[in-house]
Amino acid sequence: MADADRVTAAVMIIGDEILSGRTQDTNLRDIARYLSAFGVDLVEARVVPDDETEIVETLNHLRKRWDYVITTGGIGPTHDDITADSVAAAFGVKLYEHPDIIAMMTARWSGELNAARRRMARIPEGGTLVKNPVQGPPGFQIDNVFVLAGVPQIMRGMLEDVGPRLRTGKVVVARTVRVEGTGEGVLAAPLEVLAKAHPALSLGSYPFFGPDGYGSNLVIRGRNEAEVLATVEELVDALQGVGAKSIERMDA
Amino acid sequence: MADADRVTAAVMIIGDEILSGRTQDTNLRDIARYLSAFGVDLVEARVVPDDETEIVETLNHLRKRWDYVITTGGIGPTHDDITADSVAAAFGVKLYEHPDIIAMMTARWSGELNAARRRMARIPEGGTLVKNPVQGPPGFQIDNVFVLAGVPQIMRGMLEDVGPRLRTGKVVVARTVRVEGTGEGVLAAPLEVLAKAHPALSLGSYPFFGPDGYGSNLVIRGRNEAEVLATVEELVDALQGVGAKSIERMDA
Repeated sequence: MADADRVTAAVMIIGDEILSGRTQDTNLRDIARYLSAFGVDLVEARVVPDDETEIVETLNHLRKRWDYVITTGGIGPTHDDITADSVAAAFGVKLYEHPDIIAMMTARWSGELNAARRRMARIPEGGTLVKNPVQGPPGFQIDNVFVLAGVPQIMRGMLEDVGPRLRTGKVVVARTVRVEGTGEGVLAAPLEVLAKAHPALSLGSYPFFGPDGYGSNLVIRGRNEAEVLATVEELVDALQGVGAKSIERMDA
Repeated sequence: MADADRVTAAVMIIGDEILSGRTQDTNLRDIARYLSAFGVDLVEARVVPDDETEIVETLNHLRKRWDYVITTGGIGPTHDDITADSVAAAFGVKLYEHPDIIAMMTARWSGELNAARRRMARIPEGGTLVKNPVQGPPGFQIDNVFVLAGVPQIMRGMLEDVGPRLRTGKVVVARTVRVEGTGEGVLAAPLEVLAKAHPALSLGSYPFFGPDGYGSNLVIRGRNEAEVLATVEELVDALQGVGAKSIERMDA
């Protein structure tokens, strides 16, 4: 599915709690799905610890390589929230207290702006705010990097202010053919024939098994909807005779 | 928590289905938790697409930088399962059909070993098998790299054969002080004092909020259990007077 015009993004998840296994990340999937509606391909994701050197190096690599980078986590008021400092360091700029955040927090906490809370008002020079419609201070954007919260509800809220800023691509259309009662070993040959016949499409096989049976979800993805839909029919035809218990066309 | 003797690992998740948002990864968390019991620190994770160049470059970077790399996904029989080929390419070795896998599959499928199934019998020269106690062919190890399935049940089963092969480190002890009814803005100052007093520990704050209330889980992690436990008590003492609705000590 190579495409010179495609729009790409990477996700950088910042947080010891993900790497320790304490927290199950769900932001990656939410961001991937959100971006897909704008035709933006998530092409890489990284999870890094709360370590400035790691964050700076990873961010500088990703932001130069891809059209956009979305980071999650580390923008709260505690000492382990080092994302703003690290992003500023990556860009070689200073942090400053954004007056709109100071005003918002002054209203929220009746003027009790201790040092920890003031930390959350800092954004890098050259940055703009990303609205937080849920709770707490905003995120920010600097150049092609969006810096969002780690708490999933807040992250999802902030994403709504990211989409309108993106250069959009052609949306990928995905369809699934769900095959039950036949293993991948039998499905592989007809699938490969189709994959070779349609180099512009991405064909994947995702097996499942459990108490209710086994089989595989065969996923066809591409930017040409007509080709995707036609390939679904070619695939269903090709699968007659493999001995499947059922073959079902599914959206997405 | 810097430690010259610590044992490190990275995870490489291989799969377009994770980057498209179709599938919610859970392998990262399972691996992180599993490794922690062996005192092995998961220090980095990456999600890469089904693309040989990306897999080779990422693997070669990670395997040279850290003690171990665990990969998940892409070891099935279909054309998009390119992990074995990519790992062999990263090591500059060839793949060969492992006789034990051929024997196992011949028994399983009564001799019907088509080309797709034979693909799953291939492991890189110099590799050893990683047992699969669940279903299907085994994974493999080559040097410091473990190549496991992507299906979570199978991945977890294979992990059981990884642990005994690891050089073990000193296990990290983690304790949580759960504070309800007080925001991070108030908790930050006492937490930072403790973090500075205990540079060998990692102190993190993970806020939560929802219909039942708000607060933060303050997590203390370190390899010296006595210091962790003593710091929990110092933290609980320091939090008297912050106006919390409850302060609760929790294991892990």
